[in-house]
Amino acid sequence: MSSPSFGDRLATEFAASRHLCAGIDPHAPLLSDWGLGDDAAGAERMGREVVAAAAGVAACVKPQVAFFERFGATGFAALERVLADARDAGLLVVADVKRGDIGSSFAAYADAWLTPGSPLEADAMTVAAYQGFGTLEGAFRHVRRHGKGLFVLAATSNPEAREVQLSRREDGRSVAAAMVDDALAWNAAERTGPVGSVGVVLGATLDLTAFGIDTGERERGPALPVLAPGFGHQGARIEDAGAIFGGIGHALLANESRSILVGGAEGLADRVRSRAESVAVALEERRV
Amino acid sequence: MSSPSFGDRLATEFAASRHLCAGIDPHAPLLSDWGLGDDAAGAERMGREVVAAAAGVAACVKPQVAFFERFGATGFAALERVLADARDAGLLVVADVKRGDIGSSFAAYADAWLTPGSPLEADAMTVAAYQGFGTLEGAFRHVRRHGKGLFVLAATSNPEAREVQLSRREDGRSVAAAMVDDALAWNAAERTGPVGSVGVVLGATLDLTAFGIDTGERERGPALPVLAPGFGHQGARIEDAGAIFGGIGHALLANESRSILVGGAEGLADRVRSRAESVAVALEERRV
Repeated sequence: MSSPSFGDRLATEFAASRHLCAGIDPHAPLLSDWGLGDDAAGAERMGREVVAAAAGVAACVKPQVAFFERFGATGFAALERVLADARDAGLLVVADVKRGDIGSSFAAYADAWLTPGSPLEADAMTVAAYQGFGTLEGAFRHVRRHGKGLFVLAATSNPEAREVQLSRREDGRSVAAAMVDDALAWNAAERTGPVGSVGVVLGATLDLTAFGIDTGERERGPALPVLAPGFGHQGARIEDAGAIFGGIGHALLANESRSILVGGAEGLADRVRSRAESVAVALEERRV
Repeated sequence: MSSPSFGDRLATEFAASRHLCAGIDPHAPLLSDWGLGDDAAGAERMGREVVAAAAGVAACVKPQVAFFERFGATGFAALERVLADARDAGLLVVADVKRGDIGSSFAAYADAWLTPGSPLEADAMTVAAYQGFGTLEGAFRHVRRHGKGLFVLAATSNPEAREVQLSRREDGRSVAAAMVDDALAWNAAERTGPVGSVGVVLGATLDLTAFGIDTGERERGPALPVLAPGFGHQGARIEDAGAIFGGIGHALLANESRSILVGGAEGLADRVRSRAESVAVALEERRV
């Protein structure tokens, strides 16, 4: 197909030294901090301000959809306008929806978020595969044909996540490590460019080797897109990205939300630019 | 608080011999089968027809939200009207959303679906805890105060689910069995009535003992609500519910979708009534 793959589009961002993913988290305390109402209009306003500040500076924006969903249809209408703004601004959008289901139900979620021209069209979505990596099949059509991407939850930083993610599969691997392996294998099988289109979510505050995740340098195959929360407010330092992610962190999107959102619309553009530059400098040597 | 718990409301349904949960699955092939457009209006029409047919006959309806979400904000507006119809009809609604996240993000999903008066208010929602059972904390407030319920994915029938759900936790239990245990423990700690408010999703086509799930009769504690897909089209027989679920199947919601939806609006009420009666007869001896 003619559209560039999601991995190719990520590679373009990385080549321009853009690795920051700017979160859009319109929860009640932040909306109050911004002097906005805790309603769909407030969420829309915050989203559009972040888009304006991130355009040309960050690689992507990541709206946390839960904070729009709580307003029902009017929240989704607000989100649609934020997504349209982001597309117009040339920003990649990762819809942070953590959807998961089986068969035609999961395919419907993929249709919602990854179909070109759909009202909620994004460039990639986060997914959770409690029902197995294979359930993501319903999204692969959009990945292959429409230049879309996925970020599969693998290892996350909340303490209770270890119950599931450190569990041992029958083949001896941890659940988290197998999600990473499955994403790597999917990208390798697709023979795409230097960056794959199916990535993972890995918390930057974690010791990945404790999950059995191999962070050694890899000799072949496309780089694995890694969406990493945990930098900034949560305590991980972007300067340590090499030590944290090793060989699987060359196609890194560093997500920051609080560090750019706290403080309101005033100074937002400066905060985004400052964080984007820090991330770019820190990752200079580690790029794909 | 004065509102009855979700478990109490389920117990009322069971006492009236209502155990059927009628699925609302407006996917493209079914909408076509019904002679409806593959759009939000078609989904709304199907949803409202199912609500009308299920009122007073089924215990609940279960809209698969993915099929509404694919239409964006207009799909959610359609769903809001279906939910309002169901409330007016006195039907319990299980929003099949399989949401999952951490902290304030998960709490926002709970706010979206379980807050009294919210546009997407349902009585219970399905959740997926890839990030651990403890992440559901953000919904417990609604369960305790507002008579709401949860159905936590435990063991599901799709083959690839076994990768995650059969994995062994550090404490030796399977991921699926621990989800069941955690739900049982939550209900027991809350000292509610005879039926708990936090249930699980268990596929009726599975051998639950292979997951290490104890199906023996339990001597104490509230009955565990079990939302069970797999009856009807997928091959499980409601007459075998005792053999399948044993001691954890006394508060059973048998979900059926295809068996009632295929065939269109004509005959829908008869199909719902027929399935509801078969389920009631089969579960006569097994009720809480």
